[in-house]
Amino acid sequence: MLKQARTLLSSRSLCDQSHSLFQGKVKASTLRGFASWSDSSAPPGRGFSDDAKPSGGGRVFAPYAIFKGKAALTVAPVLPVFAKIDSGNVCIERRGTVMMTFMPAIGQRKYDWAKKQMFALSATEVGSVISMGSKDSSEFFHDPSMKSSNSGQVTKSLSIKPYEDSKSQDGKGGYYFSLSVQNKILKTNHYLVVPVTIAEFAVMKTAFSFALPYIMGWDRLIVQGENAPQSFSTHPKTDPLQLASEWDR
Amino acid sequence: MLKQARTLLSSRSLCDQSHSLFQGKVKASTLRGFASWSDSSAPPGRGFSDDAKPSGGGRVFAPYAIFKGKAALTVAPVLPVFAKIDSGNVCIERRGTVMMTFMPAIGQRKYDWAKKQMFALSATEVGSVISMGSKDSSEFFHDPSMKSSNSGQVTKSLSIKPYEDSKSQDGKGGYYFSLSVQNKILKTNHYLVVPVTIAEFAVMKTAFSFALPYIMGWDRLIVQGENAPQSFSTHPKTDPLQLASEWDR
Amino acid sequence: MLKQARTLLSSRSLCDQSHSLFQGKVKASTLRGFASWSDSSAPPGRGFSDDAKPSGGGRVFAPYAIFKGKAALTVAPVLPVFAKIDSGNVCIERRGTVMMTFMPAIGQRKYDWAKKQMFALSATEVGSVISMGSKDSSEFFHDPSMKSSNSGQVTKSLSIKPYEDSKSQDGKGGYYFSLSVQNKILKTNHYLVVPVTIAEFAVMKTAFSFALPYIMGWDRLIVQGENAPQSFSTHPKTDPLQLASEWDR
Amino acid sequence: MLKQARTLLSSRSLCDQSHSLFQGKVKASTLRGFASWSDSSAPPGRGFSDDAKPSGGGRVFAPYAIFKGKAALTVAPVLPVFAKIDSGNVCIERRGTVMMTFMPAIGQRKYDWAKKQMFALSATEVGSVISMGSKDSSEFFHDPSMKSSNSGQVTKSLSIKPYEDSKSQDGKGGYYFSLSVQNKILKTNHYLVVPVTIAEFAVMKTAFSFALPYIMGWDRLIVQGENAPQSFSTHPKTDPLQLASEWDR
Repeated sequence: MLKQARTLLSSRSLCDQSHSLFQGKVKASTLRGFASWSDSSAPPGRGFSDDAKPSGGGRVFAPYAIFKGKAALTVAPVLPVFAKIDSGNVCIERRGTVMMTFMPAIGQRKYDWAKKQMFALSATEVGSVISMGSKDSSEFFHDPSMKSSNSGQVTKSLSIKPYEDSKSQDGKGGYYFSLSVQNKILKTNHYLVVPVTIAEFAVMKTAFSFALPYIMGWDRLIVQGENAPQSFSTHPKTDPLQLASEWDR
Repeated sequence: MLKQARTLLSSRSLCDQSHSLFQGKVKASTLRGFASWSDSSAPPGRGFSDDAKPSGGGRVFAPYAIFKGKAALTVAPVLPVFAKIDSGNVCIERRGTVMMTFMPAIGQRKYDWAKKQMFALSATEVGSVISMGSKDSSEFFHDPSMKSSNSGQVTKSLSIKPYEDSKSQDGKGGYYFSLSVQNKILKTNHYLVVPVTIAEFAVMKTAFSFALPYIMGWDRLIVQGENAPQSFSTHPKTDPLQLASEWDR
Repeated sequence: MLKQARTLLSSRSLCDQSHSLFQGKVKASTLRGFASWSDSSAPPGRGFSDDAKPSGGGRVFAPYAIFKGKAALTVAPVLPVFAKIDSGNVCIERRGTVMMTFMPAIGQRKYDWAKKQMFALSATEVGSVISMGSKDSSEFFHDPSMKSSNSGQVTKSLSIKPYEDSKSQDGKGGYYFSLSVQNKILKTNHYLVVPVTIAEFAVMKTAFSFALPYIMGWDRLIVQGENAPQSFSTHPKTDPLQLASEWDR
Repeated sequence: MLKQARTLLSSRSLCDQSHSLFQGKVKASTLRGFASWSDSSAPPGRGFSDDAKPSGGGRVFAPYAIFKGKAALTVAPVLPVFAKIDSGNVCIERRGTVMMTFMPAIGQRKYDWAKKQMFALSATEVGSVISMGSKDSSEFFHDPSMKSSNSGQVTKSLSIKPYEDSKSQDGKGGYYFSLSVQNKILKTNHYLVVPVTIAEFAVMKTAFSFALPYIMGWDRLIVQGENAPQSFSTHPKTDPLQLASEWDR
């Protein structure tokens, strides 16, 4: 049986959270009525959203946040980037991702945004997550220098493993989300784990399934169709072969 | 085998329902051709929508309603509230919910809107519901004073438990939705139960899955992407690191 | 193993189909390259879309059609109707449905539109269909005079039952969709059966799941939220109780 | 346990890919940082998008691409084409499809776009794919001359069969997508196989489920409803039969 407890959100917490979370300023704030965090780095840091959309203004912050004892995890989609190519057409230039951001706890319900570690799930990795059965595990490896001479110097791996714990809040376990970041040059090794309940995982799966066509850019294909005048046939009677596109060479 | 009977809706019932349901005026009206209700409170009460959107006009009422012998249950999404923060960005300030409203029956197919009890499912609680298997149960606890000295004085719990009843309408059972509201100060204790068939639960799961990204605010991230000029890359050739956002610090 | 054969569509068939299907004029036309139909009734009949949207112009016809040996079945969503109520608000007045239209075959791959029989699935009935497991059956009864003295004079029942047939096209069976319409006054009894393959049923389930929030009117709640200025909080700091809507009375 | 490795995308690869992929010009380019391709045909070829939308400009390219040792596979939705019929109504004239494009490898991570073979999945075939269980197979046959005297001269078949391979990348197998194109007149026989992992198949299923209502044209029914003034009832009180559309003849 699933059991869950929830308090009221304080009216100011969520936006202060995002404010701190994404602007990277030093600040302590309450979250969900009983969580706060601070940024241990002095200068203004940069959140991933700054990287994704460098120009200011018009951004929307609505991450799904999971706050646990030793670390917190937020997830949010990052949309693809399109480029205009010749003849007025548009091409997907950079695939979107689902960005997972881990933050270590630095006290009871306090998290350090400056020590965050990020992992960007590709469309196929999102496919792995949403197809996981209740006893499946997944593991993803990222290496920015893969196939180059620097391969293996800096690596990230995200592991998702089921747990069953009779002492857990919902009595049914869930999944451990573990992010490991190894930097052999700097000789650093970060490891962050967030236990995710079955209910939270269900939110992720549904939200990931919702986001997947968008990070793939397929929504553009649809919008294109709905607005484009070309979606109306102009010579329906005179082009008997128009239906045979798969047969053309 | 699922079996269901349905009558025609009377042409006036649904809007009169909403009218009464949401404006809270004293009124008796037919519903689904054979249900009616009244408001036992004298002064104009307030429905939850009034709370969610205090200013009048422009609201849409389309709850999914389940009317049973001892009580009725309506469900409808309540969208998140956003706040404009500095530099023109927008932040989710209050998460959306799926609001569940229970009303006791006060006669055959008559329900008392004034005695309604509400329970607002968070995104994670919605995740619990949509991930429930056919034999799973869920239970959610809400306490507005949690973590304060008033903790436990007023509490709500929503229980969802499967039933199997050979005498039930569809021969396959379904789920009991039970809402318990305890107020130790006023010494009141309300308990409302609505049996929900498998078909009705399937509608809830599909509608909740549809609504979940919206109550999370993720649709804003998507709309943002589709309309924003920033979604086109401006320097695709000169910024080889733009793809490496997960590697930035 | 699923096996399916498909021919190219003739370039003119689909619209001629809709033309005939929905305008109800006497016409014979090819469909999917090898199906045609005619209307055995002399005067211009009316399709269900005419009933749903009496005024001409601006309608879109895109039913999903299944043509089998003894009968054909088309399915298409019918959207809800909204009414403006006082204070500028909008209320759902008539729920949408998924309309199922059966037509008997009157020859090889010829169907008689004039003898069509319709069955409008409610949201809850759609929920029944999309929650059906591979061995489940469903049966729905409609009586326009239910709870009145004319009850039982005219009734419709739709039955969905799984079949397993080693001789079937895909070797895996599917579901029999059977519509029975009894009119005790006219002493007529119509019975139409269309075998639906697992693949066709999967299309229905996915399309029904897509359509369900729209026939419930929940998409309006969402659009409302996205465009409405009220979705931005105006007094985030001064109204600490605005989050507690479920606690209000 | 699922395991996956991923490199960073080069900043220029995806659009160059699409550029080459869809404009059909002779070009070699990198893909996903380690894949490239060329077009072995001298004159400017035509991609399927050219067939679907002959006029230039306004097109969006965002295929989902799977690159394997012996061949590559891209999938993308092709929207339906609508026609305006009398009285201002709109009718679906050509159903949309999900176009699958196979390309043979001509070296390590190099693919020959000129030798591509295409297969357009209909709505029902998409239904087959998204309803496949983990041990199910599917097979689809297309013959442009079916039911004519030329039947069988040129045929295509797409086979989807599960594999289990302890040596596979994710340790869990996946599905072989095999396209066979036989031309008895030209005496050619093309056969292309792409192994698709469970994660990639999950992306396909989710993306296909997203695309299905659009290739069926059902999104138009929805948009129609949201914008059309007819969706507001004009005579709610005076037309008691308006709800009884399934009962009309």
